[in-house]
Amino acid sequence: MTSKKLLNSVAGCADDALAGLVACNPSLQLLQGHRVALRSDLDSLKGQVALLSGGGSGHEPAHAGFIGKGMLTGVIAGAVFTSPAVGSILAAIRAVAQAGTAGTLLIVKNYTGDRLNFGLAREQAQAEGIPVEMVVIGDDSAFNVLKKAGRRGLCGTVLIHKVAGALAEAGVGLEEITKRVSAVAKAMGTLGVSLSSCSVPGSRPTFELSADELELGLGIHGEAGVRRIKMATADEIVALMLDHMMNPSNTSHVPVRSGSSVVLMVNNLGGLSFLELGIIAHAAVRTLEVRGVKIARALVGTFMSALEMPGVSLTLLLVDEPLLKLIDAETTASAWPNVAKVSVTGRKRSRAAPTEPLEAPESTAAGGLASKRMALVLEQVCTTLLGLEEHLNALDRAAGDGDCGTTHSRAARAIQEWLKEGPPPASPAQLLSKLSLLLLEKMGGSSGALYGLFLTAAAQPLKAKTDLPAWSAAMDAGLEAMQKYGKAAPGDRTMLDSLWAAGQELQAWKNPGADLFQILTKAVKSAEAAAEATKNMEAGAGRASYISSARLDQPDPGAVAAAAILRAILEVLQSQGV
Amino acid sequence: MTSKKLLNSVAGCADDALAGLVACNPSLQLLQGHRVALRSDLDSLKGQVALLSGGGSGHEPAHAGFIGKGMLTGVIAGAVFTSPAVGSILAAIRAVAQAGTAGTLLIVKNYTGDRLNFGLAREQAQAEGIPVEMVVIGDDSAFNVLKKAGRRGLCGTVLIHKVAGALAEAGVGLEEITKRVSAVAKAMGTLGVSLSSCSVPGSRPTFELSADELELGLGIHGEAGVRRIKMATADEIVALMLDHMMNPSNTSHVPVRSGSSVVLMVNNLGGLSFLELGIIAHAAVRTLEVRGVKIARALVGTFMSALEMPGVSLTLLLVDEPLLKLIDAETTASAWPNVAKVSVTGRKRSRAAPTEPLEAPESTAAGGLASKRMALVLEQVCTTLLGLEEHLNALDRAAGDGDCGTTHSRAARAIQEWLKEGPPPASPAQLLSKLSLLLLEKMGGSSGALYGLFLTAAAQPLKAKTDLPAWSAAMDAGLEAMQKYGKAAPGDRTMLDSLWAAGQELQAWKNPGADLFQILTKAVKSAEAAAEATKNMEAGAGRASYISSARLDQPDPGAVAAAAILRAILEVLQSQGV
Repeated sequence: MTSKKLLNSVAGCADDALAGLVACNPSLQLLQGHRVALRSDLDSLKGQVALLSGGGSGHEPAHAGFIGKGMLTGVIAGAVFTSPAVGSILAAIRAVAQAGTAGTLLIVKNYTGDRLNFGLAREQAQAEGIPVEMVVIGDDSAFNVLKKAGRRGLCGTVLIHKVAGALAEAGVGLEEITKRVSAVAKAMGTLGVSLSSCSVPGSRPTFELSADELELGLGIHGEAGVRRIKMATADEIVALMLDHMMNPSNTSHVPVRSGSSVVLMVNNLGGLSFLELGIIAHAAVRTLEVRGVKIARALVGTFMSALEMPGVSLTLLLVDEPLLKLIDAETTASAWPNVAKVSVTGRKRSRAAPTEPLEAPESTAAGGLASKRMALVLEQVCTTLLGLEEHLNALDRAAGDGDCGTTHSRAARAIQEWLKEGPPPASPAQLLSKLSLLLLEKMGGSSGALYGLFLTAAAQPLKAKTDLPAWSAAMDAGLEAMQKYGKAAPGDRTMLDSLWAAGQELQAWKNPGADLFQILTKAVKSAEAAAEATKNMEAGAGRASYISSARLDQPDPGAVAAAAILRAILEVLQSQGV
Repeated sequence: MTSKKLLNSVAGCADDALAGLVACNPSLQLLQGHRVALRSDLDSLKGQVALLSGGGSGHEPAHAGFIGKGMLTGVIAGAVFTSPAVGSILAAIRAVAQAGTAGTLLIVKNYTGDRLNFGLAREQAQAEGIPVEMVVIGDDSAFNVLKKAGRRGLCGTVLIHKVAGALAEAGVGLEEITKRVSAVAKAMGTLGVSLSSCSVPGSRPTFELSADELELGLGIHGEAGVRRIKMATADEIVALMLDHMMNPSNTSHVPVRSGSSVVLMVNNLGGLSFLELGIIAHAAVRTLEVRGVKIARALVGTFMSALEMPGVSLTLLLVDEPLLKLIDAETTASAWPNVAKVSVTGRKRSRAAPTEPLEAPESTAAGGLASKRMALVLEQVCTTLLGLEEHLNALDRAAGDGDCGTTHSRAARAIQEWLKEGPPPASPAQLLSKLSLLLLEKMGGSSGALYGLFLTAAAQPLKAKTDLPAWSAAMDAGLEAMQKYGKAAPGDRTMLDSLWAAGQELQAWKNPGADLFQILTKAVKSAEAAAEATKNMEAGAGRASYISSARLDQPDPGAVAAAAILRAILEVLQSQGV
């Protein structure tokens, strides 16, 4: 079976893709009647050397993504993985010549079809009196023994586009550019590895790999590599690749050794996740640096793909300062990344963690009366929650994943452990802040975050005062934060329902002379009623919102737990006769 | 079975990926002890508003790729598809505050975990006295009926990074930035479609699709979309997506209508080929323009991925001139593309084809004696090749794909057709040039290109003179071009072997008083001997080079054909008694 693809037609896919790139990039134009894209400011390039490249389609963003000031003047695209037509190459050469450019350099990847077709167009253009030079790029480092056909042209070609583009932009002549880039092309190597194949539109995948195999040294058309290797870690695979590329007994190796400066390119062959690309890039940087290689620049992204192939290639280019200036030169090419003009090797990759704010001194000594009372309240809350574990889990099994009791027990045990370490702070603001951090860390999940939010926000009004109006304001602040970030509202069948009902009653604390116990008792009763009422509510937030209301006939366990916590607080305070 | 991935460990993959991005980008630093990346020039941002974003990993290059001057100050990354830790978010806020920035805006995608964790860190930071605002981005246009949880945060978030970054860079204050980006966030929508699922490292794919189905409106974690649709053309799928996004009865639609100006984002969800991405971009531009929508800018690339998901999302943002200025503002963020500051809609997307050079007037009238002789020679060559068709195919079956005779016959018939149109040019240079174009177009394949190259190059020395030394020079030029671009050398078992042997003999034509027939006869015999000798050669180029020499015991069909062509030329010339 052929692979799934987002296309209009197999026959038109290369045309459509190039037209799309041109449509989205106002700096480009198509050449009528040809699968050719050119800079739309072509007529401003008089006297400058024109740079044309191209080849089969399926390697996007190469090559059209590299058209722009400081890179290519234009590209000629063939059908997928097929060399472009001689007539179109010749048309592109004529178009740039007629725009007044001073000769053309053809940058061609080393494949027979491309060599012949670009070569033929060159011969014909020369016969018409147009100065045309051609460099054939072979940067493949896969083969230990050089094949007659030479090294294949791979992702390193994009670096040649960059170097030639910078030279052309600087006004360097055709002969000199040809000489310079020919030398640069000899100082690089590329090696790819892939988890799987790609498939040409309308065709089946070009090869098959088993689940524990990788193809090493493959080309950009899904052609075979040097060998299959067993699945290994990213570090091991990268070490193997660099060993192969840098091994002097490999005739196509890159002469990189300790002390060398390189540009590193980490190229997504198409379908690899960028997560993996970053992991491979990390491995490549570390491995090269351990070997004493200085990485001057690292380019990570999709530069020359093989359709949707889930693989990566590494390119190493030996550089000196003058060459680096050309790599760093400005370009408007859409697919060239923003690269900082700073060496990758030798700079600090991390920053010290920020200092944590100093804790305010305890307003009331820990261990005092207030502190002891706080400890008693918390112990009662913990005992209550532990006693409810099975009940809460049972309620949760009907509506969620059945762990509500377990989650609350985990919180209770964490608080018990913490109380063993010493008396809690007597300052309510500090106590709530501490509890917030503790629940966040130990309770976990959305409940931990929601209680953490509630407590953090509630702590703020208690910093200045700890009278009854301040406690009511604390409840308000906690409820507000919970609603703001949790997006639940009262009536949504969550823990908010009971807390919110209590908060409404606690408004009365703001009145002068309000009675602590009378109002708190009403608040607890109201919370319990609200918890019970959740059994008739449709879930509007949280996990239970995925369950149809018809199947929800028990109260919400989070609401039940919150009401129980309030009841426990009331009981301790009453027994203490605050 | 879990999917194949290039990792060191499932547990460490998010750390490794972020470390890789930072290692390759000297403009970034990690915050020690946290999965946080920050601008390395943080200490130069005193008095400027800091912008922090982040969320689960697996969406690379989002968000760390968008850190830089003019975009984000830093990001906090969670494990794959998991909200980041509150402690790390708080550490990032503290770090930018301690560097002297004037308050922090948190840009958060609308997911419960992100809202809670960023919200909690915000509350804690505020409690420490740090000014922190938060915008929650929900740009999902998938759901017709608004869910309680609101619209999911998708690729449009990157545009918010850009707008907020430009404002912060311009020195705008925290409150104003918050207000501005909150308004911008309401004027956009995103919709995705995918051919298949993705898989979290260590897990199986999140969903399955059959071969003829697409998932429409899916999220960036592989969560379900609005519905499955049947496979269709790219144009049809894009029309369906835009219909859905722009439909006023969809509560989450983008209010784009005829006359609106938009920024269009075409985002690779990870594993789609860039060929397909260009096709989708093309369809989106055309479909919007047909509906009267003006596309101010189009961004095409990988911005917010869902690991290796082979899909694409479209984002539309309504823009006016002031907003466009912010989109266009400079940034050093590595993953923001080079975008021309020119409207996509309303400019010319193609350029007229170049003019073709005028043909030189015939030096000798067509139809004259020379012209008739040329016609006779060509007819004999054609007859010879047609007679050899089966023999050449048989020779080729042993070494290639068995079509060498067919290819040469195709060339012969094309020449015969051409001769029927009228007498050939009498000028040898013009004749060879015409034949070159004819063979290139009608013969096809490498043989067509090689003969085309030979004839184009050979024509050049014959422009000035047509004496025997010029003909010998023509042979030299043709052989040189064939070797240069075809990479075959004598002895490689190709058509070059017989032509090269003949060329050696034809050197004698350069001597004064050389005899045409005597030397040409020697050349033809030498070519025939060379063709016969190829049976003992190992193939060094061409298709036969993939076959082991032990299996090659017949002469090379290309070499046999070339020798036969030379013999045919000799015989006609002799019979004419030139």
